[in-house]
Amino acid sequence: MQWDLGGCRSLLVTGASRGLGLQMVKDLVACDSGARPDTIVATARNPAAATELQKVADASPGVRVVALDVLSQESIEQAVEEVAAILGSDGLNCLINNAGIHMGLNLETVTADAMKKTFETNTVGPLLVTKAFLPQLRAAAAQGSGMGVHRAAVVNISSSLGSIQLTSEQLAEFKAYAYKTSKAALNMVTRCMAVDLESEGILCVALHPGWVRTDMGGQRAPMSVEESMTSVLSVISSLTQKDHGSFMDYLGKTVAW
Amino acid sequence: MQWDLGGCRSLLVTGASRGLGLQMVKDLVACDSGARPDTIVATARNPAAATELQKVADASPGVRVVALDVLSQESIEQAVEEVAAILGSDGLNCLINNAGIHMGLNLETVTADAMKKTFETNTVGPLLVTKAFLPQLRAAAAQGSGMGVHRAAVVNISSSLGSIQLTSEQLAEFKAYAYKTSKAALNMVTRCMAVDLESEGILCVALHPGWVRTDMGGQRAPMSVEESMTSVLSVISSLTQKDHGSFMDYLGKTVAW
Ligand SMILES: NC(=O)c1ccc[n+]([C@@H]2O[C@H](COP(=O)([O-])OP(=O)(O)OC[C@H]3O[C@@H](n4cnc5c(N)ncnc54)[C@H](OP(=O)(O)O)[C@@H]3O)[C@@H](O)[C@H]2O)c1
Ligand SMILES: NC(=O)c1ccc[n+]([C@@H]2O[C@H](COP(=O)([O-])OP(=O)(O)OC[C@H]3O[C@@H](n4cnc5c(N)ncnc54)[C@H](OP(=O)(O)O)[C@@H]3O)[C@@H](O)[C@H]2O)c1
Repeated sequence: MQWDLGGCRSLLVTGASRGLGLQMVKDLVACDSGARPDTIVATARNPAAATELQKVADASPGVRVVALDVLSQESIEQAVEEVAAILGSDGLNCLINNAGIHMGLNLETVTADAMKKTFETNTVGPLLVTKAFLPQLRAAAAQGSGMGVHRAAVVNISSSLGSIQLTSEQLAEFKAYAYKTSKAALNMVTRCMAVDLESEGILCVALHPGWVRTDMGGQRAPMSVEESMTSVLSVISSLTQKDHGSFMDYLGKTVAW
Repeated sequence: MQWDLGGCRSLLVTGASRGLGLQMVKDLVACDSGARPDTIVATARNPAAATELQKVADASPGVRVVALDVLSQESIEQAVEEVAAILGSDGLNCLINNAGIHMGLNLETVTADAMKKTFETNTVGPLLVTKAFLPQLRAAAAQGSGMGVHRAAVVNISSSLGSIQLTSEQLAEFKAYAYKTSKAALNMVTRCMAVDLESEGILCVALHPGWVRTDMGGQRAPMSVEESMTSVLSVISSLTQKDHGSFMDYLGKTVAW
């Protein structure tokens, strides 16, 4: 095991029905109880349809499945209430904004609707979810010192495709106007929140998980979900003040804005 | 005069009812006819209300006022037809995506609606307008060689507030989640278009006009519209291949993504 999340008492991940979000939950429950959060809140927009997640949760008492659609303010608020009842005054140590969508649209095929839908899910969603969970993140942050998941952290799962710099370089072949735009915008949201939450000890970071074989990443991707998630959890567990406000990949390397 | 746009036969600017867009039209008509485009298409979402623009246009035969609301696909398509009738087979040399909105919203006050409205105007608007005028930009680009406004160029008026890098540095005091996000996203759109339009000789650039005393910039801003626009026009008139896909300010200096 290359990571230790023992200091992080609670973690919430969005989009845990499949792909990287589901793998995160699987990896967390598979490890030694001392190295994982006591409570793992696995959210999905439609928990009833998330059969694989339900199976994992049924076998692991520390996992709580909660409904959360990042496109719905009502759903977000209901989730906040439910999670507050679960975590109580300890608050939430680590929020992983992982839910996201991708449509491969080029200059000719991209539409206003695709731009807006992707922005709402990938950019506005993480902002609204973070705003709504701020009281719980603040409660957790109030109990520690330094910066990291032992105190409070917001990890926005971004993508190297959101790097404006790399767009004209090695990533020029990937045509994805709506997705690239939404992830660059998410990086800006991350950076704005980093400025505003620093004094409260809430660490904010944008994280590229690698190109991974999920429904989104497709079968051409070089990494399995297992490989990606081991690295991602290792980066998350070792976040410190120096990473605050940065854009890094699954190896902890800085990605250009 | 520090600029010469004589090689640029036609220019279209959005949001010419006031502020920087209006000043651009004023500066263009005020100069020597040999140093300015033959046809200046000044667009405004509500031309009837744009009385100052109408006055300038009435006194200058080269200025054509056309209705264009960047939020409306129907309005964009009507403008394209009207402009095609004006410019004919020569096409359009220079498209200035200048229209924009700004709401000063911080982490507490920012809403989903503000994020979406600003993104639609400042990011999706320029993308849709550029897509719609591509046939006319291509017609102009087909007639020249090299890169610049003598051939075809798309200038997206961005902002240093859209710099993700600078957000945690000298611009940390400006709280503007929706605006900053929309301009970072516009920079990504610019960069994606730069990749896709390079082979057709259409130059794409994101340009920060400085902090300027307009309705948007406010009275605290250090620059007048006259100062800003002289510099902006100078940068635009000297754009070449080396600027393609870049983010520069009114002095031609590179701004960090
Ligand atoms: N895979 C890659 O190569 C790659 C590379 C870079 C970055 N990423 C990022 O990594 C994250 C996870 O991607 P993935 O590969 O695991 O994608 P995935 O397999 O397509 O899974 C996406 C997840 O997001 C959820 N989701 C979508 N819209 C939602 C909404 N409105 N509310 C709540 N949940 C929603 C989906 O739920 P449903 O099951 O209900 O649809 C699903 O759980 C994304 O942010 C993605 O952009 C992935
Ligand atoms: N001023 C600054 O300090 C500053 C700094 C950096 C960047 N900028 C950028 O420079 C550009 C011009 O700003 P400004 O200072 O001149 O702003 P401004 O004085 O507020 O003028 C904004 C212009 O955009 C138009 N507009 C807004 N929404 C529109 C829509 N949906 N369709 C068409 N036109 C629309 C307005 O038309 P109406 O009259 O109909 O409302 C107006 O002509 C903007 O992109 C802005 O972000 C300005």
